[in-house]
Amino acid sequence: MKGYPRKRSLPLDEIRCYLEPGPIVLVSSAWNRRRNIMTMGWHTVMEFMPALVGCIISSENHSFEMVRKSRQCVINVPTAALIDKVIGIGNTTGAEIDKFEHFGLTAEKGKKVKAPLIRECYANFECRLYDESLVDKYNFFIWKVVRAQVAVSPRYPRTLHYTGDGVFMLSGKIVSKRRLFLPEML
Amino acid sequence: MKGYPRKRSLPLDEIRCYLEPGPIVLVSSAWNRRRNIMTMGWHTVMEFMPALVGCIISSENHSFEMVRKSRQCVINVPTAALIDKVIGIGNTTGAEIDKFEHFGLTAEKGKKVKAPLIRECYANFECRLYDESLVDKYNFFIWKVVRAQVAVSPRYPRTLHYTGDGVFMLSGKIVSKRRLFLPEML
Repeated sequence: MKGYPRKRSLPLDEIRCYLEPGPIVLVSSAWNRRRNIMTMGWHTVMEFMPALVGCIISSENHSFEMVRKSRQCVINVPTAALIDKVIGIGNTTGAEIDKFEHFGLTAEKGKKVKAPLIRECYANFECRLYDESLVDKYNFFIWKVVRAQVAVSPRYPRTLHYTGDGVFMLSGKIVSKRRLFLPEML
Repeated sequence: MKGYPRKRSLPLDEIRCYLEPGPIVLVSSAWNRRRNIMTMGWHTVMEFMPALVGCIISSENHSFEMVRKSRQCVINVPTAALIDKVIGIGNTTGAEIDKFEHFGLTAEKGKKVKAPLIRECYANFECRLYDESLVDKYNFFIWKVVRAQVAVSPRYPRTLHYTGDGVFMLSGKIVSKRRLFLPEML
């Protein structure tokens, strides 16, 4: 075990289950024999199929050129247990350290991309750059998820949601309201 | 009181505090003497100043033409107390009913836009269309928030986060980690 969650592959049109609630994610990338991780909170699902995710990766981040040039990344969903590492990753720059090594995280080889997955995270979404038309103007990247895996348990992870100013909201109670939905709205 | 939260105006560069955690929001709009509300979960902050928010409003929604033609909307953040109304708004169409009336919600006049605010919601962000370049391809609207107000209490609202399949995550515990952040990262 060693603290690595066991994972199952996830149908691509189900990534919304883990991204739509709005967790902080870790974006991992590789370029030119370097690898990096950044903390990211500004993202949204954009389409079920193809499975599209849009996100802001500021040009001030070391990851910006790495994801732009490699046209790949992995979006990893950490759980609350990783909170100190998530903050540390945001505090540091890949220009100076290898964040996998520095924070004791395990790089797992991607199956569809060369960017490394973070094994300790609850979910890993391998992404290829789909549309870069808004990168120059807004630093907005649109990714197509090409492979997805999530931990087999728990069903609903305890995720981190950032409110600014050093304060996180932790995901709370799960409430099913299936019976109130019209079937076609599910 | 009547169940309406008392509100204060919010500096525009602080809207991220309420949107970045990823809550389900209600988008209200007005066009051609009609008004409408839709439930929306695919959104992201894109910039502090100007305060930009990107979101997907499907062309299958009655609101699509209303926001596109009026070039305005209000993004309202409901709390968990409004969960049944949030679902009901998603189940119905503004082509058939006036959702304010049907769900007993109070339309408050906007100060910067003609779209109505939903008084019962925790936060109201008045928006003007800023960039429609990705609307045809992705139904992706980029809004500039031009006025923001939030309830004076509680400091952190209990919000709704959608995981699909009729299941919501309710926002949970608030954890300050300020001491771990580099000052420039706050």
